[in-house]
Amino acid sequence: MINWNNLDTLASFRELQQSTPVDLVDVMTGESGAKRVKEYQVPMAAGFVFNYAARPVDDDILKTLTALANEAQLSDKFEELYNGAVVNTGEKRLVLHHLTRGQLGKDVVVDGVNKRDFYVEQQNRIADFADKVHNGEIVNEKGEKFTSVVQIGIGGSDLGPRAMYLSLENWAKKNGKFLMDAHFISNVDPDDASAVLADVDVAHAIFILVSKSGTTLETLTNQSFVMDALKKEGLNPAKHMIAVTSETSPLAKSPDYLAAFYMDDYIGGRYSSTSAVGGAVLSLAFGPDVFAEFLKGAAEGDKAATERDPMKNPEMLDALIGVYERNVLGYPCTAVLPYSQALSRFPAHLQQLDMESNGKSVNRFGEPVPYKTGQIIFGEPGTNGQHSFYQLLHQGTDIVPLQFIGFKKSQLENDVNIEGSTSQQKLKANVAAQIVAFSCGKTDKNLNKNFKGGRPSSIIVGEQVTPEALGALLAHFENKVMFQGFLWNVNSFDQEGVQLGKTLAKKVLAGDMSDALKEYASLLEI
Amino acid sequence: MINWNNLDTLASFRELQQSTPVDLVDVMTGESGAKRVKEYQVPMAAGFVFNYAARPVDDDILKTLTALANEAQLSDKFEELYNGAVVNTGEKRLVLHHLTRGQLGKDVVVDGVNKRDFYVEQQNRIADFADKVHNGEIVNEKGEKFTSVVQIGIGGSDLGPRAMYLSLENWAKKNGKFLMDAHFISNVDPDDASAVLADVDVAHAIFILVSKSGTTLETLTNQSFVMDALKKEGLNPAKHMIAVTSETSPLAKSPDYLAAFYMDDYIGGRYSSTSAVGGAVLSLAFGPDVFAEFLKGAAEGDKAATERDPMKNPEMLDALIGVYERNVLGYPCTAVLPYSQALSRFPAHLQQLDMESNGKSVNRFGEPVPYKTGQIIFGEPGTNGQHSFYQLLHQGTDIVPLQFIGFKKSQLENDVNIEGSTSQQKLKANVAAQIVAFSCGKTDKNLNKNFKGGRPSSIIVGEQVTPEALGALLAHFENKVMFQGFLWNVNSFDQEGVQLGKTLAKKVLAGDMSDALKEYASLLEI
Repeated sequence: MINWNNLDTLASFRELQQSTPVDLVDVMTGESGAKRVKEYQVPMAAGFVFNYAARPVDDDILKTLTALANEAQLSDKFEELYNGAVVNTGEKRLVLHHLTRGQLGKDVVVDGVNKRDFYVEQQNRIADFADKVHNGEIVNEKGEKFTSVVQIGIGGSDLGPRAMYLSLENWAKKNGKFLMDAHFISNVDPDDASAVLADVDVAHAIFILVSKSGTTLETLTNQSFVMDALKKEGLNPAKHMIAVTSETSPLAKSPDYLAAFYMDDYIGGRYSSTSAVGGAVLSLAFGPDVFAEFLKGAAEGDKAATERDPMKNPEMLDALIGVYERNVLGYPCTAVLPYSQALSRFPAHLQQLDMESNGKSVNRFGEPVPYKTGQIIFGEPGTNGQHSFYQLLHQGTDIVPLQFIGFKKSQLENDVNIEGSTSQQKLKANVAAQIVAFSCGKTDKNLNKNFKGGRPSSIIVGEQVTPEALGALLAHFENKVMFQGFLWNVNSFDQEGVQLGKTLAKKVLAGDMSDALKEYASLLEI
Repeated sequence: MINWNNLDTLASFRELQQSTPVDLVDVMTGESGAKRVKEYQVPMAAGFVFNYAARPVDDDILKTLTALANEAQLSDKFEELYNGAVVNTGEKRLVLHHLTRGQLGKDVVVDGVNKRDFYVEQQNRIADFADKVHNGEIVNEKGEKFTSVVQIGIGGSDLGPRAMYLSLENWAKKNGKFLMDAHFISNVDPDDASAVLADVDVAHAIFILVSKSGTTLETLTNQSFVMDALKKEGLNPAKHMIAVTSETSPLAKSPDYLAAFYMDDYIGGRYSSTSAVGGAVLSLAFGPDVFAEFLKGAAEGDKAATERDPMKNPEMLDALIGVYERNVLGYPCTAVLPYSQALSRFPAHLQQLDMESNGKSVNRFGEPVPYKTGQIIFGEPGTNGQHSFYQLLHQGTDIVPLQFIGFKKSQLENDVNIEGSTSQQKLKANVAAQIVAFSCGKTDKNLNKNFKGGRPSSIIVGEQVTPEALGALLAHFENKVMFQGFLWNVNSFDQEGVQLGKTLAKKVLAGDMSDALKEYASLLEI
């Protein structure tokens, strides 16, 4: 029997509130620090390690967090979810993104359709289509091969796929898997579509229109930019465009598209990189085998999250410590800092994933929650961030927990040796140094040069950014966010907070405005 | 006589703490909302308007903020700064970035050198060099024209120039000013340089090495990637590279560079876009006349900031309201949300500008401050952000003040009309709608669909992202950050918080580690 209770009603949470805080400077300095780094780590999928030595926990707090995981029934709730319960209570929907990359539990059948089979079928259809594009069976009207792919989508149809593409672009170039270059159009700002189209060889491009409902304003508007550009070159848009949409949308089975691939209501936008939303663009760009590797990594990540002991489950542990930092220590933000240029837009994707999932004020029953939920997520790759906002992170008046991500090897493995070390060694030395600087600090009589320390971080360490590793990393954060949603007792799978702005924007365009809105419209000369 | 006092010692600040908070929902709904939008605005440089109707102030609070501006001597302090006082007390330096784009006060002479003349001389030297590159007087070894420019720099030598380049790229293409394409190498991650170099036509590229000290580890390492790439093509690096550095650095007057252009210790990295740091790359990419327009806009922005009445000084007013939100209302973050794809990396630049300047815990005398200082800055362009993190902004448990930026016209002025409106109209309708949605909210019995409102924002509205407008916008934020630094009594112009990480990274590379650091190095296989 599963109980969906608010966090503050749980005995183990109240115990957590009474726990003695850890003095990070104290425990991370000297031998105890070395001991923590060795012991406070847990293996993840795809060869990653999650090291939480520099987070503000000790054995006592970890024990209470374990009790909290049990009392909040985190594993049971995850099991319910992947077995097809209606976990998205607001929209009364199942939550099935895990099925796009594996089968953790029972078959999930909706209206007579086995959903795993359905997602696999779409993957196979995409793989077949991509293979035909790559081998020249599907060509443009002049019989020439397509060389570019352009994704038209916004939010989850853009951020995840774009971040994944950028993460694997150089890996693909290095490994002979770079088959088509990809571009992305998202913003309703007309300059976005215009600029991308000016850069693309339109005659040899396939455009992917991604919209679950087939009614997203930004995406349909940008589609018409693309159609204009194609027509201007004397080309037939229907021979250049494919759709990724739900089977019931106006885009499905339309003669305006070369092909349509399907997702459904059980795949939230921000969880859709492993569905057809990411599948079409990534399979075209890098080949279906690379996309399959990515799915394999995500499936391994999901499997790791099924472990019932939180001390052996990096996703659950990360979620629990995060809730301790948020709800007991009171930190409102977390920075995501990948020491890898390939992951330059990974923080932007996590920003949506986390903030849109858990930025809620009501629980899954629509009742106000009396505690803080989802936090603000931001980040840039290191070492760039070190020369930007780290000043505040080290010496500012707020404490911001940090999530570092580091890799043993670079993607291209092309390096130079300067002053006795390679760039990759310098990169790794920097992230190691930062963790210790943030946690231990350094005393200086000149307070301007003094570092108080006590600033928590964890690090996820992997071998290299490969498709499989990327899938595992993505699944780690998806499952972490899910566990935090369970702990806060919120529905992590709807986004009612985006509706009001949409409604009011339509009113502005319809001229149906009053008061302040009218004045803003006038100021902007709409 | 100027008094540098802590914020909490000022009588007007204590009065501010006692002021009655504004109920934004109340004042922004109905006729009073319309009245506020009309009245709570102030003209800015270059045709911008700063509208603060949706920020949580009223006439009483504004009166106290005016008193605070006077008591904190904001105008006097700015005057001291631009007349050459040693405002950077930590490093005992003058702060002269305003001089790179105008002369607000007296001549500033250091060691017999008129600094304004010095900066203008560098601009003229850059203009002359860029003209010669563009007209083919300066060519590669084969006598061919250079077509690309690559900036090698990190932090302030990267974020500002990169954001400015991206902001003007399409404007330049539209207006016949796109002379060379620019690229940027910043990260010590070897994949960054490798990937950029693989994309660039090295034989026709000029590389700009930007490092004030000439010793920045990342930049020197990346230089050697560039030199290797040039040598691999049988080219002489000295014929392809220029330096932007201080006159006393090892890079100055070195035969390894085709030319060297100078900055000095009085231009902080994050304030250097209008110096040779931004000047070289922007003048090469778009021509010296475009860079001059950019400087003109920044000079206008500076001039606006000299107005002594805060109600007529948008930079000062923005700073004051921000301090009220931070120190009285207690909000730890601000999101910067430009509704313009051209400004996609402008928030990343402001993140450095603001967080590195004011993320301090000690005042300018090195004493701890007992109040919050610099806040966390993040942001993405709208409407993209709407489909990402706005969920939390609307319905999350924390309030995040928002800084919108909107433009009447797009840059390329290429548009489509769908459902009775252009994309630019849709873009503007969205930002207007968001301001009202955030401030007024909307009551719904279903709390999942309820919007409490009361979430503050301001909007800066301009005509179009032109070089002049961009300069004015940049100066607005630079001067806002400066005024906030004055209010918090911190030194906004040093960055001691970045030193410890650097020191420890060097120790790792030298093998001089103990305890936790050694274990992290082992985990990462350094």
